Amino acid sequence: MSTSARAAEQEVFIHPRALVESNSIGPGTRIWAFAHVMEGARIGSRCNIGDHAFVESGAIVGNDVTVKNGVAIWDRVTIEDGVFLGPNCVLTNDLNPRTNVRKSRGELTPTRIGANATVGANATIVCGVTVGQGAFIGAGAVVIRSVPDFALMVGNPALQIGWMCACGHKLRLPVSVSEGTFVTCGDCHRELTVAAEGLAPAANAAGVLKGAQ
Amino acid sequence: MSTSARAAEQEVFIHPRALVESNSIGPGTRIWAFAHVMEGARIGSRCNIGDHAFVESGAIVGNDVTVKNGVAIWDRVTIEDGVFLGPNCVLTNDLNPRTNVRKSRGELTPTRIGANATVGANATIVCGVTVGQGAFIGAGAVVIRSVPDFALMVGNPALQIGWMCACGHKLRLPVSVSEGTFVTCGDCHRELTVAAEGLAPAANAAGVLKGAQ
Amino acid sequence: MSTSARAAEQEVFIHPRALVESNSIGPGTRIWAFAHVMEGARIGSRCNIGDHAFVESGAIVGNDVTVKNGVAIWDRVTIEDGVFLGPNCVLTNDLNPRTNVRKSRGELTPTRIGANATVGANATIVCGVTVGQGAFIGAGAVVIRSVPDFALMVGNPALQIGWMCACGHKLRLPVSVSEGTFVTCGDCHRELTVAAEGLAPAANAAGVLKGAQ
Repeated sequence: MSTSARAAEQEVFIHPRALVESNSIGPGTRIWAFAHVMEGARIGSRCNIGDHAFVESGAIVGNDVTVKNGVAIWDRVTIEDGVFLGPNCVLTNDLNPRTNVRKSRGELTPTRIGANATVGANATIVCGVTVGQGAFIGAGAVVIRSVPDFALMVGNPALQIGWMCACGHKLRLPVSVSEGTFVTCGDCHRELTVAAEGLAPAANAAGVLKGAQ
Repeated sequence: MSTSARAAEQEVFIHPRALVESNSIGPGTRIWAFAHVMEGARIGSRCNIGDHAFVESGAIVGNDVTVKNGVAIWDRVTIEDGVFLGPNCVLTNDLNPRTNVRKSRGELTPTRIGANATVGANATIVCGVTVGQGAFIGAGAVVIRSVPDFALMVGNPALQIGWMCACGHKLRLPVSVSEGTFVTCGDCHRELTVAAEGLAPAANAAGVLKGAQ
Repeated sequence: MSTSARAAEQEVFIHPRALVESNSIGPGTRIWAFAHVMEGARIGSRCNIGDHAFVESGAIVGNDVTVKNGVAIWDRVTIEDGVFLGPNCVLTNDLNPRTNVRKSRGELTPTRIGANATVGANATIVCGVTVGQGAFIGAGAVVIRSVPDFALMVGNPALQIGWMCACGHKLRLPVSVSEGTFVTCGDCHRELTVAAEGLAPAANAAGVLKGAQ
């Protein structure tokens, strides 16, 4: 990396029309016009926070996260490293909101989007779920249950229709498959195995996976 | 209520980055960053209008309404008291919009969201419908017909899958049920009966319902 | 047209709270509060770009296009003349986004919304498709394949349920219909025929269609 590239990474870029009240933002993160990051929101390094995005006090965003335009990340939501949140996808933190029923912070329902997962454009994540690492939520899907690692989900309500490699290509693997089954991505040649939580990098391929990311 | 709490309720809070052109906003209402309330929009008391929301000239918003981020409320839309509009839920006022077909205000189609109803995150309300009082539109649902009072709706198109109490808990009551049937909420113990328009507070329980709100 | 109306058409209106960095915007176009048009975005004449909209560098928007609030138009997206983009409808330009997979502009996937088409409120258009001229995408629909001219699409995934006239009224014509079939709109009396790409103005009616627009 060049000296200037490294320098650019160390700074936080805040667009003049953004509103950033948090001082917990990692180096290299860029925050674009009409976005609002509240005091107490935590955002990691090298993230890209699009126009009209909103990050609430209490929300946690990891490193290398892409937040496209119009996405709101609420208190009690955790976005792990490397996640992609597509434009206008919607997160929540209250399972049964009623204006007349006040809830304390502890009564809100947490949601976790696992590392390197993708939440597609205009998808909806009902709170209380974990979207597994590397999972891929299709555009417009409405997720109402937790999602296995690397699962590919579409529809309303979202159903699993396959498995998605970390490289973004669909794996040749049926949805229902025995634990321990081994699969190689036809595109990037990553090797994965079926584990309890969904797919996982094959033991002998962990170094390759890490290196490629 | 303390003197200072009452004083706070009397003021309208307008975030410095909001744009508020209406002078018809009730006391205690708060309007947050990058929201835009046009001249001629009417908003009641103690509402909370989130970031990036929009309220058009002619729109009517009651008291104690929660408008989460990114919601636009159009002319010909009426939001009654106590409604919760979830993040990025979408309202409309033209059933068959074509750029090349100009419509007068009278040709737009009205929509009414009944008192204390919830419109879930990223749900869509096609204009021309009434969402009944206390109805609960699930996240991501697409409502194309009027909704009975206290009905619970999910999916695209939205179908009724149950009934939702004012307290936000699902009632133990089948969708198809005879008028006059009586039900008690397992959570808050409110008593309701099946009426022509959906559920209604049981006659002897009206005081309880009012008090709890 | 009066002299003052013509003068008004010649100007670009930019709301004081909008952010417009492009100098390729046609006369008569209006851009509203908190909208952001990036340098290198091209927008035609007499368009209406709503609050909180976003037009990215590289995006192409024709003449007489309505972009309702909260819509983002990305690089590689082409919006032809006369299109209506409903509130919070979502476009995309990456079929399988992963934060850790960088793509050059050439690796993004183009999308075209044909002349005079309507994309309904909160609909989602997965990239790589062409929405045919005059097609009508219902509110909340999720389009994953190309759409014939004047087709009416609803649901997730979007399926064709009929045909929609340029005037916005549903035609009396089954979805599956032989090429060459002739139909007259019951509302505006436009005459159309079934062609390879969907419906087309009947040869003898082209003048009528043009005149009515």
